[in-house]
Amino acid sequence: MRDVAVIGIGSTVFGKFPERTVEELGQEAALAAIKDANISPRDIQFAHCATLYGDTVIGQRVLSRVGISGIEVVNVENACAGGATSFRDVWWKVASGLYDIGIALGVESMTTSPIAGKLIPPAKDDIQGQLGFTMPGVAALMMRRHMHQYGSTPEQFAMVSVKNHKHGCLNPYSQFQKNLTIGEILNSRMISDPLTLLQCCANTDGAAAAVLCAADIAYRYTRKPITVAASVLKMGGYSYLWKDITYSDTTASIAREAYEIAGYGPEDMNLIELHDPFTPSEITHYEELGLCPRGEGGRLVEEGATELNGSIPVSVSGGLLSKGHPLSATGVAQIVEIVWQLRGEAGQRQVRDAKIGLAHVMGGQALGIEGGAGSIHILKK
Amino acid sequence: MRDVAVIGIGSTVFGKFPERTVEELGQEAALAAIKDANISPRDIQFAHCATLYGDTVIGQRVLSRVGISGIEVVNVENACAGGATSFRDVWWKVASGLYDIGIALGVESMTTSPIAGKLIPPAKDDIQGQLGFTMPGVAALMMRRHMHQYGSTPEQFAMVSVKNHKHGCLNPYSQFQKNLTIGEILNSRMISDPLTLLQCCANTDGAAAAVLCAADIAYRYTRKPITVAASVLKMGGYSYLWKDITYSDTTASIAREAYEIAGYGPEDMNLIELHDPFTPSEITHYEELGLCPRGEGGRLVEEGATELNGSIPVSVSGGLLSKGHPLSATGVAQIVEIVWQLRGEAGQRQVRDAKIGLAHVMGGQALGIEGGAGSIHILKK
Repeated sequence: MRDVAVIGIGSTVFGKFPERTVEELGQEAALAAIKDANISPRDIQFAHCATLYGDTVIGQRVLSRVGISGIEVVNVENACAGGATSFRDVWWKVASGLYDIGIALGVESMTTSPIAGKLIPPAKDDIQGQLGFTMPGVAALMMRRHMHQYGSTPEQFAMVSVKNHKHGCLNPYSQFQKNLTIGEILNSRMISDPLTLLQCCANTDGAAAAVLCAADIAYRYTRKPITVAASVLKMGGYSYLWKDITYSDTTASIAREAYEIAGYGPEDMNLIELHDPFTPSEITHYEELGLCPRGEGGRLVEEGATELNGSIPVSVSGGLLSKGHPLSATGVAQIVEIVWQLRGEAGQRQVRDAKIGLAHVMGGQALGIEGGAGSIHILKK
Repeated sequence: MRDVAVIGIGSTVFGKFPERTVEELGQEAALAAIKDANISPRDIQFAHCATLYGDTVIGQRVLSRVGISGIEVVNVENACAGGATSFRDVWWKVASGLYDIGIALGVESMTTSPIAGKLIPPAKDDIQGQLGFTMPGVAALMMRRHMHQYGSTPEQFAMVSVKNHKHGCLNPYSQFQKNLTIGEILNSRMISDPLTLLQCCANTDGAAAAVLCAADIAYRYTRKPITVAASVLKMGGYSYLWKDITYSDTTASIAREAYEIAGYGPEDMNLIELHDPFTPSEITHYEELGLCPRGEGGRLVEEGATELNGSIPVSVSGGLLSKGHPLSATGVAQIVEIVWQLRGEAGQRQVRDAKIGLAHVMGGQALGIEGGAGSIHILKK
């Protein structure tokens, strides 16, 4: 196994683009990453592309628009962890020596999809779904239980959304660029008690791309290669079967494995992009990722530790809550943000002296289905 | 890179199963492959699962039903080449040493999918689709042009369907178990002149699975390991832009590469499972795979060379035309058939003394989209 570097990254602005096809979004991100890597499209030897709603052979449809043909293309799906899956498989095909240079894509147009975000009746054998066990429903249970068990407060959960929207205002790629107050968040429409609207991510369109190459040739293309220090992807358990709904064993277990592989602990991370579709997700992931002891996630955000200038900045991109969540694009977009940060190219939201960053994403775990996916990547300068 | 062996295979019967979920089909195939490999579900270290219509995190939904959790699971999509893509990625993760044992799945329930086989209006920018450039339309053009260019006859095309249905009658896993005459085929309903109904594959439900492991430990599990001699997957060109619609450069090019990697030529193959969704597909693929000179595909089938007892038996499983075509399951099912044949376990349809077999599948090439996928695997005893 050899070291692999990210040498090029690209992303569309995240938002609602009813007039743009998913191929156009993917094309923009792919071209940006290829340009950023100082390579030509014909240098790309293979590609993996993640989508959930982008229909068949999406990678080929995107790549043919940037003048690429004849290469190996694999389309992957892993719910919200699709982008991370795409990145991981490209990483491995380079690390293992099958290819020298490849591109990882994640694309999603939820606005133009005929099915995304629509109310789809649960399957006949999906009892949980029929009983209303939706993703916001699970998040609300997590939140309620965390408050009961650890004394965390509705205000602390709201502070996650305040923080991520504040970060989003510093990111030109973010869907929302608007500061929110705790009051606005707590008084927004109730979705699933105690979870309110402004504590939930929105439907988003967008695409992101990363060009990876063997680390020993990365200096041909860039003076700032960012290395992949750990890549972990695992199937998870079903959230309602967790021993404790405030603690995802999947995230805890993939975090342990990623830290072990990278040879770093949570205390070594300079920034973290984590899976924050709902405010309780971020609080509980703090604990599972080892940023604070169990039960203290609420205090961590209240103390400001996870703010841009805190001791461990989390979701400085704005996260899913503010930057937006185009499902299969998110995992790649997290990598893009970390690379910008480690290169020192993150502008107003730059984390000072960032050397190591972690991207964490979960897929499908809160659906009325068994399993799902969790992934962590650690990148370093 | 190390050698990889297929040590276990499983498949559902192919057919129409409106009462069975896609998870049930996948579970049956996975359990059969695990049992066939003489392993326990907990020996499976990772999985790739192909589907087009099976919805999100399908691999996890199937594997959790066979008692598997906590492993890496990747879901892949490559139109009709999805199953081959799943198999290839499992092959590579074992060949490269990331894991020792994994399972490749392909699952599809076209009957229970809310979208499969339904008339979906072409996208706004899909001019070809709006003009009626459907898959049977492309196949009809190929057929007409092949007749014009090479003097092949409607009867020769019909003979492909006669042969594959004859093979299907010998395969208990085949959707159709009925012999057809040339007259019945040519007189069946016209779909796209000159292509008639009985020259087109049907909508099919089914699943297939293969367990792969490092060749050096295969003897722990089986006395009949089948080795992967070549694995090729490439993005293809758009069929209407081919220089000659009777000749897919994609298949010709991946065939050259696969023969080169395996160190065998077409003359060394003892059996071939190829992509025969329509009768002209099989005739033209004969030529691209090098089974006969260009233009002589019609004569090849007429002479009986590709029958079970011919010099190069093709689609002895019944192929897509008779065995059926559950899109993403097909690529894995072709491998299953070849493994049965190379082990000498194919019953009434056994190819005598089969030592080397080739599986070929194409995905998405005839849609009104740019790109698509083509894959070839060569397996040997």
